[in-house]
Amino acid sequence: MTMTAYRTHHCGELNMNFVGKEVTLIGWIQKNRIMGGMIFIDLRDRYGITQLVFNHEVNAALAEKAEKLGREWIIQVTGTVMERYSKNPNIPTGDIEIMVNQLQVINQSKIPPFTIEDQTDGGDELRIKYRYLDLRRNKVKNNLIFRNNVGLAVRNYLQSVGFLEIETPFLIKSTPEGARDFIVPSRIHPGEFYALPQSPQTFKQLLMVSGFDRYFQIVRCFRDEDLRADRQPEFTQIDCEMSFVSQEDILTTFEGLVKHIFAQIKQIEIGPIPRMTYQDAMNLYGSDKPDIRFGMQFVNLTPYLQHRDFSIFNQAEWIGGIVVPGAANYTRKQLDNITEFVRRPQIGASGMVYIMCQPEGTFKSSVDKFYNQEDLQEVAKQSNANAGDLILILSGKKEQTQKQLGELRLEMGNRLELRKAGDYKPLWVVDFPLLEWDEETARFYAKHHPFTAPKPEHIELLQTDPGAVNANAYDLVINGTEIGGGSIRIHDTQLQSQMFKVLGFTEEEAQAQFGFLLDAFQYGAPPHGGIAFGFDRLCAVLSDTDSIRDFIAFPKNNAARDTMIQAPARVSEEQLNELSITIQEREA
Amino acid sequence: MTMTAYRTHHCGELNMNFVGKEVTLIGWIQKNRIMGGMIFIDLRDRYGITQLVFNHEVNAALAEKAEKLGREWIIQVTGTVMERYSKNPNIPTGDIEIMVNQLQVINQSKIPPFTIEDQTDGGDELRIKYRYLDLRRNKVKNNLIFRNNVGLAVRNYLQSVGFLEIETPFLIKSTPEGARDFIVPSRIHPGEFYALPQSPQTFKQLLMVSGFDRYFQIVRCFRDEDLRADRQPEFTQIDCEMSFVSQEDILTTFEGLVKHIFAQIKQIEIGPIPRMTYQDAMNLYGSDKPDIRFGMQFVNLTPYLQHRDFSIFNQAEWIGGIVVPGAANYTRKQLDNITEFVRRPQIGASGMVYIMCQPEGTFKSSVDKFYNQEDLQEVAKQSNANAGDLILILSGKKEQTQKQLGELRLEMGNRLELRKAGDYKPLWVVDFPLLEWDEETARFYAKHHPFTAPKPEHIELLQTDPGAVNANAYDLVINGTEIGGGSIRIHDTQLQSQMFKVLGFTEEEAQAQFGFLLDAFQYGAPPHGGIAFGFDRLCAVLSDTDSIRDFIAFPKNNAARDTMIQAPARVSEEQLNELSITIQEREA
Repeated sequence: MTMTAYRTHHCGELNMNFVGKEVTLIGWIQKNRIMGGMIFIDLRDRYGITQLVFNHEVNAALAEKAEKLGREWIIQVTGTVMERYSKNPNIPTGDIEIMVNQLQVINQSKIPPFTIEDQTDGGDELRIKYRYLDLRRNKVKNNLIFRNNVGLAVRNYLQSVGFLEIETPFLIKSTPEGARDFIVPSRIHPGEFYALPQSPQTFKQLLMVSGFDRYFQIVRCFRDEDLRADRQPEFTQIDCEMSFVSQEDILTTFEGLVKHIFAQIKQIEIGPIPRMTYQDAMNLYGSDKPDIRFGMQFVNLTPYLQHRDFSIFNQAEWIGGIVVPGAANYTRKQLDNITEFVRRPQIGASGMVYIMCQPEGTFKSSVDKFYNQEDLQEVAKQSNANAGDLILILSGKKEQTQKQLGELRLEMGNRLELRKAGDYKPLWVVDFPLLEWDEETARFYAKHHPFTAPKPEHIELLQTDPGAVNANAYDLVINGTEIGGGSIRIHDTQLQSQMFKVLGFTEEEAQAQFGFLLDAFQYGAPPHGGIAFGFDRLCAVLSDTDSIRDFIAFPKNNAARDTMIQAPARVSEEQLNELSITIQEREA
Repeated sequence: MTMTAYRTHHCGELNMNFVGKEVTLIGWIQKNRIMGGMIFIDLRDRYGITQLVFNHEVNAALAEKAEKLGREWIIQVTGTVMERYSKNPNIPTGDIEIMVNQLQVINQSKIPPFTIEDQTDGGDELRIKYRYLDLRRNKVKNNLIFRNNVGLAVRNYLQSVGFLEIETPFLIKSTPEGARDFIVPSRIHPGEFYALPQSPQTFKQLLMVSGFDRYFQIVRCFRDEDLRADRQPEFTQIDCEMSFVSQEDILTTFEGLVKHIFAQIKQIEIGPIPRMTYQDAMNLYGSDKPDIRFGMQFVNLTPYLQHRDFSIFNQAEWIGGIVVPGAANYTRKQLDNITEFVRRPQIGASGMVYIMCQPEGTFKSSVDKFYNQEDLQEVAKQSNANAGDLILILSGKKEQTQKQLGELRLEMGNRLELRKAGDYKPLWVVDFPLLEWDEETARFYAKHHPFTAPKPEHIELLQTDPGAVNANAYDLVINGTEIGGGSIRIHDTQLQSQMFKVLGFTEEEAQAQFGFLLDAFQYGAPPHGGIAFGFDRLCAVLSDTDSIRDFIAFPKNNAARDTMIQAPARVSEEQLNELSITIQEREA
């Protein structure tokens, strides 16, 4: 399919089967080596690299021309496929080379600002500014091909089980709930604005009201957040919704999707995906997205450590430990280093207690002053720690301490190399709380979003004890990263109004913002629910990396700027006048 | 795949094979008929309609409950599949009905503001406001399913021939060329704005510079245009680009796509797609998007009608005719009616001349005073008109008259029912002029866009006679509608700079707007070209309709407003302050 006016073959396909054949190739010069009377050129295209040969003895004029070519020039060559003297087993075309008899320079190139190699000399900033050159590097190129393949697998699976891809609008209405919207001034309606969607949430629910049953969309979403290292103002979501389903139906359906992706993309068979309640996740891992590639589950040690004179533990709401296998021989320095880790401001623990379970059956701890060997033995027993293991203990307010211990657990997982690349452990976290109390604004916020249904048996609690209400909400976690989340939605006007009330919306506000949805619910809304996956994040996790940016063709930097095209930028006064807006003067 | 917690089957699948089986269905009540002691309910879901039966004699309580149900309520029923007494051959489930033994109301419905029927009593405005209800109607629902299927066919084909789907950014930079941009204020960079893409044009070209060879994307695009009846501020494009190709490669590749779509979606085999130059299209059809389902090509009659005393013709730059087959017997009234048509302000002709080729071999015309039988016979001969045909003639300035005659030709095609639904005649229109002269601003504009390459043999003309330069640009036309267009692009910095100059950009302006592209071209840009198809339009044409809105789930109205969600809308002062913008005061 690649034969076009400019070539008969691409640079990744020729091998011994083609020896003796005349071919025409076109591509970029990766490398240019002059060895005696020979010039060797590595010619690169999307598909691979093929070695070209020019020989002064065979064609001096052509060889001289070849000597003058530079890196990243585009040349078109015609020549004969020959077996190589010294073969390169690392590339598919490594057995052959092309003895060139015609050469045409198609386009020249300035010397690139960084080397187009797997290991480049270009820093992040330079590479993002010249992203079109960075995309020539195998790693970045392969990431985008990978993303294409994941998208294809997702679409094929969802279509095969009856989901329809339906596009929802991008120019919608701003809603104050949740993250900040990007807004778009309307020229035709001065003083009014569209907003870019943070997700197609309400539209996909309307599609359920319409009867579309199984909807999906791979769709761009927008959030004007204060940027963190790995956030992008625009990101892509695999957005799905189903009608006439229970939570179980949704988990089963999307377990199928996850299995399909792993089978298609990674050639890995994933077994049944385990499920864990939010409460268990917090109590055992201190995180709602536990990495279950390794153990080190928390042990609640509160009952076993508050009977002595150690006031720090006695004052603690919760004391928890993890058992680090085989680490009883850690040096003072190693232990100090771990203590330093938990004391970092990002973690925020004030200190750490350790107990070494020594091979000879005795115990050594940082609190030997307060606890005797029997005390420590009891802790070891409760923790299922064996001789040779190290127990690390944090204490304090329960929730906070669990989070800190969760961070410590991950850190120890890293140090012991228990978080293995290529090992994928998906997990459903279920039974999330419906609401989150915010101290600062003294109100409840939706943990998921305002459309999430409380568990039917908790609906009454909504009036008496909203904080105790659980939701039919679930997250898909892979290796400690949240890949997706969703819920069963409210499909009843009354319940939805009640939910808005709990969230502090007046009736007028609810009507102004979501009147169309409340209206829609009055015309026969089906029970429904759904899920959305972060597509960028999914690609990153499947590739064992943290950086979503590597999977976005043209990402923005940490200041939400595209340094390649230089956006955002000033626009003309004329444009602003047409839109009836003015830029506010700032004080110097 | 449809069995879930709420149903065992859907409403479109049960037939005689299921008789005697107990099934559970859920759906909307389409219709509710009481006939004697029986209640018949048509239950509807995405997949079809199944008839439910309740019988007072069998279960009086249940029948009474069923009597109280209303249209569009959602009910869940369990019952036994029975053969019907009077079958309905029009629906797949027409042989059976469900004798219900359990009934549960899942959700009630207010009476919808219009009937959910193929022929509804709801007007456009009402239906767009309650789009979620309009989408329940078969016609609109099927349009979205159709769109899903077309999208799937497009993706499958393009992936099968090596195209990669790569996402390009939505938050980009505003460019003054072309239509108006929607812009998005940046909060982090006060006074600066992103723009929403009118197309991913420059990004797909950068991907070619990166070496991605075959790119596509089904992608939303945005244009802040003054709205015409059938334009939407956001629309979807099938956007494609290829490297190392000639125009011929592109036409061949996308001819393959068009054939695949027709085969997959319409089960129609399309032969080779004919090609016509822009000049021929204008000279023979008065349009750059001719409907070639029927003939009536123009005949240039200028040489044959300027030798007599008819001053209107003698002063005309161009005189052209079309032959309407078998219409020589048109009445005075019919002819007047056609004359009225060409005199409409939208067409703008001042008059029309006709010649009737009478069965007996004589001629009757509206200009008998000026032309004798021999004159008229010569015109008929030149026109290949037969006895019984009617020749319609317009005259005036050449370009204008050709356009008018083109409109007349389409009108006659409609009247003679020659533009048949279900008959698809794709056409490549090629060799477009590169530039268009605009009298008002006294400058050239890019006919296609500023990145379109002039034909190599015309490059020199760019300096001497820009208006005469043709481009390697092409449109795909189906049945008189432009479905797509593209071109071979410039891949040379020098030529691109020259092009910007011709378009009236100063060097600084070109650098400020497109510096990144001009830079990119300096690092080995490959020869490349591409095409973009209007996805909404493609769906409409394949369905023999003009209205793209019918194929958009949530369209905007003619004032670019979403009346369902009420967008655009005012936003809070707080939001504007965060974005450092103010709304301009307007005088009352």
